Amino acid sequence: MPKHLIGVMGPGNGASPLVEETAYALGQHIARRGWVLLTGGRNVGVMDAASRGAQSAGGLTVGILPTADTTVLSPAVDIPILTDLGNARNNLNVLSSQVVVACGIGLGTVSEIALALKVGKPVIFMRVPAEAVAFFARLSVHSLTATDSVKTAIAWIDEQLRL
Amino acid sequence: MPKHLIGVMGPGNGASPLVEETAYALGQHIARRGWVLLTGGRNVGVMDAASRGAQSAGGLTVGILPTADTTVLSPAVDIPILTDLGNARNNLNVLSSQVVVACGIGLGTVSEIALALKVGKPVIFMRVPAEAVAFFARLSVHSLTATDSVKTAIAWIDEQLRL
Amino acid sequence: MPKHLIGVMGPGNGASPLVEETAYALGQHIARRGWVLLTGGRNVGVMDAASRGAQSAGGLTVGILPTADTTVLSPAVDIPILTDLGNARNNLNVLSSQVVVACGIGLGTVSEIALALKVGKPVIFMRVPAEAVAFFARLSVHSLTATDSVKTAIAWIDEQLRL
Amino acid sequence: MPKHLIGVMGPGNGASPLVEETAYALGQHIARRGWVLLTGGRNVGVMDAASRGAQSAGGLTVGILPTADTTVLSPAVDIPILTDLGNARNNLNVLSSQVVVACGIGLGTVSEIALALKVGKPVIFMRVPAEAVAFFARLSVHSLTATDSVKTAIAWIDEQLRL
Repeated sequence: MPKHLIGVMGPGNGASPLVEETAYALGQHIARRGWVLLTGGRNVGVMDAASRGAQSAGGLTVGILPTADTTVLSPAVDIPILTDLGNARNNLNVLSSQVVVACGIGLGTVSEIALALKVGKPVIFMRVPAEAVAFFARLSVHSLTATDSVKTAIAWIDEQLRL
Repeated sequence: MPKHLIGVMGPGNGASPLVEETAYALGQHIARRGWVLLTGGRNVGVMDAASRGAQSAGGLTVGILPTADTTVLSPAVDIPILTDLGNARNNLNVLSSQVVVACGIGLGTVSEIALALKVGKPVIFMRVPAEAVAFFARLSVHSLTATDSVKTAIAWIDEQLRL
Repeated sequence: MPKHLIGVMGPGNGASPLVEETAYALGQHIARRGWVLLTGGRNVGVMDAASRGAQSAGGLTVGILPTADTTVLSPAVDIPILTDLGNARNNLNVLSSQVVVACGIGLGTVSEIALALKVGKPVIFMRVPAEAVAFFARLSVHSLTATDSVKTAIAWIDEQLRL
Repeated sequence: MPKHLIGVMGPGNGASPLVEETAYALGQHIARRGWVLLTGGRNVGVMDAASRGAQSAGGLTVGILPTADTTVLSPAVDIPILTDLGNARNNLNVLSSQVVVACGIGLGTVSEIALALKVGKPVIFMRVPAEAVAFFARLSVHSLTATDSVKTAIAWIDEQLRL
């Protein structure tokens, strides 16, 4: 049986301190559940913060890099997947995650949320402005879930994994 | 000197008749300028309508398919690029277009607009709801252009190609 | 009806003068038949020589680049496809070609021949050492064709397109 | 610090019993060293045998699938990466492995060896006919290593990781 991979996607350089704190806490709680954290693997923003959080709680972290260059790899990634696909790798982040958490929002995150909803992957929104959630809700056939509570997010992920 | 490739991106199965008409007219005018039309290549929606429009005006059409399966190819595509990349091919549509026209909107289109804005590619919005344009404007460092006039869109593309 | 795309694959920097001459002549004859030439698009070796040959005969040339950087583009490419996929783009070269000509051999060419034979794409070998052809013949379920005559190669391609 | 990822590549459906036994033993020894096994992830041939071997020894296994379809996933893969890239994913297998073991040979394996040698990735050959090794040696600037002893292969990998 494969492990459960939970994707946390969000801005790289543009992440705010609050978004990074949330990503760190998400990583911690994902690890405590025994799930594997999956991110875009770089050493900045949400990818880095979530990976550090997961590692601090003894969890396993996968990072799917856009390059083949490990100098941009987060030091908190255990399993680096070097794609050299540029932004085309965003689709791999989404497909390889059983559940996607959008933590904060940037243009890369928008592409990932859109690709996830298109294939019916469960997505939960954290620290994403209400009008951005509403934007995606209008394009999606499913109802969308948003919360700023890590505890609520983890409970929701747990439910999705049991479906 | 390579030819000018103009990308027209928009919904496949979910395109409205008005959006398809606009795509057809766009294809015609792109062809009349001597530009090459680039789409996602499938035989539905905006991809198909724009390709038929361009071909009706004697233009050249490129279609970048997500599959290696030509049964889903628009009969109005001259140059099929068979990627077998799934939705990861959306990034190729964007990178290979010198200018991107978003004509209508669906989840795939959202991913393409986001990837285009992320790399600073010029994007113009047609038949896209104002709140969707506003959503992207908040995430983009550039000001965004929207119009429902094909003539205005073509003039704007022409300007971008001269920059 | 899409146009016929004929792929010519071979070494970039390591191409010998004889291999480049053959690629140039192939490009010319492909263009004269009204077929579209497809290459890896860079401004070196077989890709560049074949594209220049095709353009000299008034043909249309497609180049599928590994990067999104047009500074490495052959000036003889009409339709640049910018993938930013690195060497993963080799599979697109193969899938998008109706027939593949291996003209000379390098490690990139080996990957393309292998991927082509794996999906049953017709491959013809030119200026490839006999032991390399024999290597592929042992791995392939089909019999393989090799020739150093451009005229013979063109006749063989023509046959494949009629199957 | 990321973990060491060791790639074992080889035929899927066409693998012989001897090749599969070797793959199983390789997986076991890779796991005993504390390295992570990386394969193409499918439930056949070398990918499956190596993953089962690694799992039997308590190791961690990564499988980079060509599809987004987990019904073809080896049950011995812990971390499935779902690419939906078709054979373009072969380049990811190679780039994500610090060392590549070619165990047996098929057309997919040939493409992986070629892509690995092209970027200077260390490759060791097991259960590969001498003339196939010679074929690659003629195209490679490095000298190539072949062995049918798992113990020798593991010692060689260990050396590569210390360079």
